[in-house]
Amino acid sequence: MFYSSGGGVFLSIGTHLIPHPNKVEKGGEDAFFISSYKGGVIAVADGVSGWAERDVNPALFSRELMAHASNLVEDEEVQYDPRTLIKKAHAATSSTGSATAIVAMLERNGTMKIANVGDCGLHVVRKGQIVFSTSPQEHYFDCPYQLSSEAVGQTYLDATVTTVEIMEGDTVVMGSDGLFDNVFAREIISVVGSYNNSADAAKALANLAYDHSQNSKFDSPYSQEARARDFDVPWWKKIMGMKLTGGKLDDITVIVGQVKSS
Amino acid sequence: MFYSSGGGVFLSIGTHLIPHPNKVEKGGEDAFFISSYKGGVIAVADGVSGWAERDVNPALFSRELMAHASNLVEDEEVQYDPRTLIKKAHAATSSTGSATAIVAMLERNGTMKIANVGDCGLHVVRKGQIVFSTSPQEHYFDCPYQLSSEAVGQTYLDATVTTVEIMEGDTVVMGSDGLFDNVFAREIISVVGSYNNSADAAKALANLAYDHSQNSKFDSPYSQEARARDFDVPWWKKIMGMKLTGGKLDDITVIVGQVKSS
Repeated sequence: MFYSSGGGVFLSIGTHLIPHPNKVEKGGEDAFFISSYKGGVIAVADGVSGWAERDVNPALFSRELMAHASNLVEDEEVQYDPRTLIKKAHAATSSTGSATAIVAMLERNGTMKIANVGDCGLHVVRKGQIVFSTSPQEHYFDCPYQLSSEAVGQTYLDATVTTVEIMEGDTVVMGSDGLFDNVFAREIISVVGSYNNSADAAKALANLAYDHSQNSKFDSPYSQEARARDFDVPWWKKIMGMKLTGGKLDDITVIVGQVKSS
Repeated sequence: MFYSSGGGVFLSIGTHLIPHPNKVEKGGEDAFFISSYKGGVIAVADGVSGWAERDVNPALFSRELMAHASNLVEDEEVQYDPRTLIKKAHAATSSTGSATAIVAMLERNGTMKIANVGDCGLHVVRKGQIVFSTSPQEHYFDCPYQLSSEAVGQTYLDATVTTVEIMEGDTVVMGSDGLFDNVFAREIISVVGSYNNSADAAKALANLAYDHSQNSKFDSPYSQEARARDFDVPWWKKIMGMKLTGGKLDDITVIVGQVKSS
């Protein structure tokens, strides 16, 4: 397919962010940005919360990273390439901390290029099924690849770079792991099919993830994955009430993009 | 990355096919081809067995489709695009029947483009994790999208088209659903990491799938998926011994490509 300038597909975007219940006052550690440049740009970063133990606010790195990325979308050197955008935004970020990050850039001809470091994710829903998903990267269970202020972290070179051909009528669902750890793919398909408006769909998905995250009896994707890896909670954490069932409390960011044509 | 002609990455390919135990004499209904053109081309087609009920040999369509695809790899009009290859191979196929099909074409610069119709699949394994997977397409449980001799089937336009940036050291694992219904992703990672030779890895994966397919107590990916969808066996089939546990007897095709550079 080829579209002359001004025509082609674009994303009609809705977003919704729900902070971790213990982090509501500070707004949580997820950050995101959206842009209507070309077919649309969407991105999520999830600040790694372990930095709080070192007296660093984990939200600073993810927010600064997304702010730079947002400013660099139309940068000439970026050439509308999401891996290069991550490279330049990471280089510009001076905060201490680390974050997972995903960026997707849609061309008007339907080509969507995605760069992903860590366990944020993106699904493409077409005719009631998921026709594309990113794969999370991690060092070990629950420790994702991450862009960092420190040399030990990952870089744009560790990003998984994929491209998928998008069609009018598709729905793109991007989120932090707070979404994907708490909501099954089949539920995402169902919710996306129930709303005409992308903002309503994003809100419904975030609310569903939040409800599941607070439900200690819900057998979440996170719990199932933990059990599938024979992961168990050490006895001293069990005494403190930790368990391997239920949802996962986390910041939850959802971006829904409906693919339309003009 | 850019490589001059003659340099760049390529696939070191091994294959293994094990027919369904009831179809050994005829060789089963899976078909595949490999080519060393450019960075390498790999493809699998899985003939839909329902055609046997209409006195059609389900292997004819898949084999003819792969034979045409193999001959068309260097075709000028195909321009090394897997969706166009599927289009032209499908148009050239005159047998009655239908098949799922997947084609992956690797450029020497590391760009691998994949077109997929149905529930064959492809994983990319990097540093002990899966960094890319195709998503299966189906009309309903166990009824995949399929290229067909009949007008009711799917066409190249229904193919999911994705591109992934491949690196030296990656391993590409392609298979029919006989592999993915019987072997978990974590097992694929483990097997791929245990063999230096792609032919040995392909054989080990096919044998593992075969062992699981015959094990009525193995809680296979197929069984888990069936239960997750609240799929149940009708009572009259239960009386005949059908169940929702164990592996899935099927033709099993595995292609393993180790990404090397020259």
